[in-house]
Amino acid sequence: MDGVVETSLSQTRQLVSDMDGAGLLSETPEAILSRINPCSSLSEALSGADYIQENTPERIEVKHDVLTAIEANAQPDAVIASSTSGLLPSAMFENIASARRCLVAHPLNPPHLIPAVELVPGPATDAASLHTARMILEETGHVVVTLQREIAGFVMNRLQGAVLDEAFRLVEQGIVGPEDVDIALRDGLAMRWSVVGPFETIDLNAPGGVFDYIDRYGPMYDDLSIGSEGRADWKGPVRDVVTADRRARLAVDQIPARTKWRDARLAEIARNHLDKREKS
Amino acid sequence: MDGVVETSLSQTRQLVSDMDGAGLLSETPEAILSRINPCSSLSEALSGADYIQENTPERIEVKHDVLTAIEANAQPDAVIASSTSGLLPSAMFENIASARRCLVAHPLNPPHLIPAVELVPGPATDAASLHTARMILEETGHVVVTLQREIAGFVMNRLQGAVLDEAFRLVEQGIVGPEDVDIALRDGLAMRWSVVGPFETIDLNAPGGVFDYIDRYGPMYDDLSIGSEGRADWKGPVRDVVTADRRARLAVDQIPARTKWRDARLAEIARNHLDKREKS
Repeated sequence: MDGVVETSLSQTRQLVSDMDGAGLLSETPEAILSRINPCSSLSEALSGADYIQENTPERIEVKHDVLTAIEANAQPDAVIASSTSGLLPSAMFENIASARRCLVAHPLNPPHLIPAVELVPGPATDAASLHTARMILEETGHVVVTLQREIAGFVMNRLQGAVLDEAFRLVEQGIVGPEDVDIALRDGLAMRWSVVGPFETIDLNAPGGVFDYIDRYGPMYDDLSIGSEGRADWKGPVRDVVTADRRARLAVDQIPARTKWRDARLAEIARNHLDKREKS
Repeated sequence: MDGVVETSLSQTRQLVSDMDGAGLLSETPEAILSRINPCSSLSEALSGADYIQENTPERIEVKHDVLTAIEANAQPDAVIASSTSGLLPSAMFENIASARRCLVAHPLNPPHLIPAVELVPGPATDAASLHTARMILEETGHVVVTLQREIAGFVMNRLQGAVLDEAFRLVEQGIVGPEDVDIALRDGLAMRWSVVGPFETIDLNAPGGVFDYIDRYGPMYDDLSIGSEGRADWKGPVRDVVTADRRARLAVDQIPARTKWRDARLAEIARNHLDKREKS
């Protein structure tokens, strides 16, 4: 147990130091780290906590056990958030007595650099808990997406899945290689969406806004019949095409280095956003 | 005709001046503008041109007429590119004698700030013309996506359509409001995709790369059954929901001002990319 705590603290120190180097902190690393209290028991860890975020593995039995233990040790009104990206709140909180204060708070990887977090209530989650979670997350620099009710994949993975499925289909059909898809997003669509989301994009791309856009371009999208052939077979031959292309560009053992590079770029973007906010 | 040329030149001067202000030019505005030769006849405009980009309205009769006239006046080996986003090369170049040198070069709006351009060959387009177009576009700072053959919507609008369709569906089903979708992309998925495209994203998100990712997360995406209910009805009640939300955030007459703001942000991002390239 001590080993786990030490490893975790050492990773946190590194992360905070990286964020400091990127100019993302408004306090010294020491001031931030001094607020972290490592504990070796749940009751100690949860004492005085208003908001609890559990990040245990994505297995429903694990979640049940952890949530039951958290519930037994937390303050009566503490909000209990789970970081799951795949398990549904209705299943996770099924046998939890105080399910009213349980919800999903799902960040995007890497969570210390990407502001968006989605909040997903279960059938029993109350509005007060959602509100508290939202306030606390916004105060700590996140931008919150709130779902009205659960849906498989939530919003993030449904949107990511829609893009990936069309991407696999385009490669499967031999229209483009995987790198072309990455260029189309990286140096095209996503560059634009990172400034104005997809609805604002189409709102700005027709003189009368989004209503007008649907009149002008809706029929074009109807003609594309996207998804009409059903899901692409990700495990079919297209998997070898994508794998061969990726491996030609990056050896598997280079993934950690490339991830570091990605995070440095994301940190720059986050820093840029922060500058904007401070100036305004 | 003179009025058209003058209006066009004046818009170009403004654009070049904006780009200069954003630090996007490697030459003075005067040097760039001095290379623009306004003409009032096609033969004059095409004399000596190796690459021709036509940007006339998206109507097949217009394209046929314009392409026929361009063909008659262009140098024998000039590449003829069309900026269409909706018309298929096979239809556009059907009756053009030298269809071998005709192709689609489709930029993304705003084209002076977004680097990605997709090249779409028609059935008769030869490899040499595609190669020439690619070289010229890359030399002028674009990042090129090359399609192996045409498909309705090409790559850009198919990927955009996949996102929009899932977005409309999520709003249609009352899962989230339009602004939540925009946040999920702007401050989440697209921020990441603007650094590493969707294939590279999943390649970095599993220890063994994309092959491993498909094993780990493929079944989760299968369970989402994205698109299984068919296309969302963009013109149904969801249209009023999205319109009401957008209009509450931005009046229609504010669209031009917001577009200017968007372009200024995109210019910053483009400038940042340029700095990176110069340093490396």
